[in-house]
Formats: sequence, structure tokens, C-alpha cells
Amino acid sequence: MTRKPDPRLIAVDWGTSNLRARLIDASGVVLESRASARGIQSVEPGDFHRVLEETCAGWRSGGAAPAVLMAGMVGSRNGWVEAPYISCPAGAAEIGAKLTPAPGSTDVFIVPGMDCRWDDGAYDVMRGEETQVLGTGVSDGLLCLPGTHSKWIEVRGGRITRFATFVTGELYAAMSQSFIGRLAEAPDNPAGALAGARAAGLQGGLGRSLFQARSQVLGGGLLPNEVRPFLSGLIVENEIRGALELFGHASTVTLLASEPQASVYQQALANAGLGVTLVDPGLAFLRGIGRIAAMRPAS
Amino acid sequence: MTRKPDPRLIAVDWGTSNLRARLIDASGVVLESRASARGIQSVEPGDFHRVLEETCAGWRSGGAAPAVLMAGMVGSRNGWVEAPYISCPAGAAEIGAKLTPAPGSTDVFIVPGMDCRWDDGAYDVMRGEETQVLGTGVSDGLLCLPGTHSKWIEVRGGRITRFATFVTGELYAAMSQSFIGRLAEAPDNPAGALAGARAAGLQGGLGRSLFQARSQVLGGGLLPNEVRPFLSGLIVENEIRGALELFGHASTVTLLASEPQASVYQQALANAGLGVTLVDPGLAFLRGIGRIAAMRPAS
Repeated sequence: MTRKPDPRLIAVDWGTSNLRARLIDASGVVLESRASARGIQSVEPGDFHRVLEETCAGWRSGGAAPAVLMAGMVGSRNGWVEAPYISCPAGAAEIGAKLTPAPGSTDVFIVPGMDCRWDDGAYDVMRGEETQVLGTGVSDGLLCLPGTHSKWIEVRGGRITRFATFVTGELYAAMSQSFIGRLAEAPDNPAGALAGARAAGLQGGLGRSLFQARSQVLGGGLLPNEVRPFLSGLIVENEIRGALELFGHASTVTLLASEPQASVYQQALANAGLGVTLVDPGLAFLRGIGRIAAMRPAS
Repeated sequence: MTRKPDPRLIAVDWGTSNLRARLIDASGVVLESRASARGIQSVEPGDFHRVLEETCAGWRSGGAAPAVLMAGMVGSRNGWVEAPYISCPAGAAEIGAKLTPAPGSTDVFIVPGMDCRWDDGAYDVMRGEETQVLGTGVSDGLLCLPGTHSKWIEVRGGRITRFATFVTGELYAAMSQSFIGRLAEAPDNPAGALAGARAAGLQGGLGRSLFQARSQVLGGGLLPNEVRPFLSGLIVENEIRGALELFGHASTVTLLASEPQASVYQQALANAGLGVTLVDPGLAFLRGIGRIAAMRPAS
């Protein structure tokens, strides 16, 4: 059956743990939305096509044929098919020109991730965040996307020019579950966050300041219910200091975050003297994937 | 029964996981040695006396009565009885004058740990390492004691003047078992250690450089079997840089370490341009506790 051109689009955010598909019309309005825990780590190789069709059931039948654009870890080595990274600098045009077709499909595409080689030898990669950033409307600025692996992304002239990753969420989870967090008591007392941010300024680096989450309790300078906020404040402030060292001091940062990270980072960025513009990551993703879709070559 | 003075000493290193007792003569020669996994975390409150007597069975009977000196976590809040910290600066004389008697005993003592308040607000504590340091014979210098919580200790005029803790071993264990270490393959290829040490020099701090253990594998700059040595090299180099920032650059460092840490740190310290004197920690402990015992007030 030959399908007629369909002005609508199915936008799929397919990450490690979650899958979210939305049917949007030509102007970007969401007609229907479906989410599940079928992230790529729960999908067997060879099963991606079936999971996608089940998720989009009814959206691509009866002559309707909206194209599908997917972004996120679905394009990684452990995903459906590896979509090679696009190197910095790149914007929607470069990315839209390099979509990877899903095997056996002519209208299902994977948005490539991006990589960044720094002069100092560092190498960074991302998948999905490039799509969000391109949907913020920021054409020149610095963006912060907190998470297990926080991304700081620089945009110049509408293109992503440089970015760096900080393992903030992973460090926090590991340390609060490890020996150093053992004196912690619930419920969390947010006063600890500011003490943690101050400890990020100690000489000797993070390996030294992390010990303060334990020693300060033994010395009476920190309450057990402040330990986890202390660790969070310390590791987040360490990220912010590191990012400003890398990208230079900005006056404003665009923050793509949902709660609870949004509040934590808004406060920490404000304390560091930065203006903050908060953007909803889900909305930014939709706008970004729409911009990328508009750039794809006519089939 | 009245016990006659006994020139011998029972030296006990009682840590979190292990217990080691040695009967030594007046000149420090080890007559007998016993070790077990009865660290304080395996001993119920109220059971410490019994475990000690079992460990030293036969050493304190038949009229013989060597005094017992214990150092390590046995003097912590979770140990037999809390022995309050002695503050820097202090040496064998100050420590020997402040031994804490074990409850119900007149000749069983706990060596107090030490604490250190830094001008920048940092607070550090140790238990056991002070005894090792005082047994090295170093009267002026910088000492490194690698471990789960590495200690760097400054000695001036035979007294411990300042020290700092780095959570190196804990960070390595947590990160190599966490997501960031997931691409690691065995057996370890030691070439990764040098790449890790170089990554410690990247701008942006440890939160950024840790991500390189993953991204460099994706980018082809690191082999999977180099991931764990990379993490070790990175975190150890981060510790060394932090310590030299705190204490100033030294020409020589006295390293108290056993294998496998001894080799790792000897190499890393040499790469950082430091001369290294390696001292056996067990021997240093015995000498140190002997010095402290000689300073205790006559009972």
C-alpha cells in the first residue's frame, strides 16, 4: 500500500529506562502521548520494531503515515541501530541531514547524537540532549541539563559548539549509598546544601571535600540529617565551578530540568551569581525534534 | 593476685574489619602474633573485653601481666569506648599522656585518635594512623597512607602538625562498580593508569574527568581493559595533586603502604616528581605504639 504524505510527526524520546512517544500535528501541537518503561535496556535486540509499533498502535494505520523521529539512547551501540555521532559544531540542519533510517523502514529515523573533541584531549558524547537544546530557542548561550550525567552545552549562532559531561547524579547516588554517607539520617534537612556548596571551595579537590560529609558530623559541625543535602550541594557546586572554568563565566544559564533537580540547580546557580532561565525539557524536546524533522531531505 | 611489673607489651591494632595483636618484648621484638577478622564491626557492645582476652589467651596468665595498648577504630564511637581526639599539633608525649583506660581494667588502654581543624573550615580525623606515623622515625616531613580514606600527614619537630583525608579508595570502589565503570573488561591493562593520571589535569574537576572513563572507550581512545586502571590512575593522581596543593610541594614523601597500593602509589608519586621512601605500615605501627607506651604515666 502506498501511503500519502502525512503532515504529522511521531516524536519518540527513547532512553535507557523510558520510552515516550507523542503524535504531533504540523504546528507541533501534541495530539496523543504514550509513555512506558520500555527503555532500551529492557528491549531485546531484534525487538525494537515491534515495541515501536505497539507503542504507536493506531497512529500509523488506515492510510495515515506520519514519519517517526527517535532520539536518545535508541541510537547507541546498545540500541536499535548505532547512529554515528555528528561532531561539534552542528545545528538542526547538519543533524537533520544525517538521520539514520531504522532497519527495514523508509519513514522511521534515528536522530544522531553528537560528540565533542576538546583541545586538552577530553572527549564528550551525548544522545538526546542535542535535540532538547535545539528546541529551546537559544541561539547564543550556555545551557545546563542536570542528570546522572549532567551536560553543559554551549550554543553559538544557533549551532552547538562545545559541550562537557559531569557525572554529578552518579557520584551523588554512589556516595550517599557508600560509607561516606553512612551517618546520614532522614528526613533530609536542606540546610546542609549550603554547607556542601561552601565545602566545594576547599583546597585539595573533591576527594578531600567528600570526606567532610563524615568528619563534620563527628566534629559537631554538621547534623546527620544534613549529610545527604551536603553531598548534593557539594557535588552540584563542584559541577558548576567546573563548567564555568571550562566555558568561562556566563551571566545567564538556560536550565533544562524537571523537579526535583530544577529547584536544586536554580538555587545553586543563583548562589553562584548566575541568572537562570528555566525551560521544560519535554517541551524543548518536542520543539527540537520538529526543527530537525523539517531539515530532513525529501524522500 | 597482685601482678608484678612486666616489661613486655601487647600491641593491638583493632580496626573496623580486622584485629591484630602482638606480644612484644621490651626492645620491640615480636614474640607472638595473632590476627583475626574480629574487627569492631563484628563485635557486639559489651563483648570487647571477652574478644580481647580470647585473642591474648595465655599472654596474661600465670603471673605475667604485660600492659595492653590498642589503637584504631576500637576507640571510636562504635568501638569499645570512645577515646576523645587529641588535636594537632601532638606527638608521642601528648598522646601517651592521654590514653583512655578500657572499662574495668587498669592496664588496658586505648590510644586516642587525632583531629585537625583547618583555617578554611575543614575538619579531619584519624584513628590508628597517628600511631603508624610516630613509628616511622620521620621528625620533619610529609607522609602518605593510602587506603579507603587516604591520609596525608605533616610532621614537624617530631609532632603531627596537620593532616587531611581523601576518599580515594572509596571513590575508586564506588565508581568502578557504578555505571561509569560498566565498559570495563578484565584482566586489567595497567597502561590505563597513565591515561587516567593525565585526565586528572583536565579543566573542570573530577566530576568531568571521571566521565572520560566511559566516553574515551566510546571514542576509541581507551580500551575496555584499561578502564579500571584509568579510574585508579585518575583518582590517585587527583589525591596527589590535592595533597600538594594543601601541604605545598615536597621533594620527598614517606609512603606507608602494603601491596598492591605500594606499587600504585610509588609509581604515581614518582611520576609527580616526588622522591619516595617506602615504610612497612605494620612495623611502623609496632614502633609507634612502643613509643607511645613509653610515654604513659606510671600507674
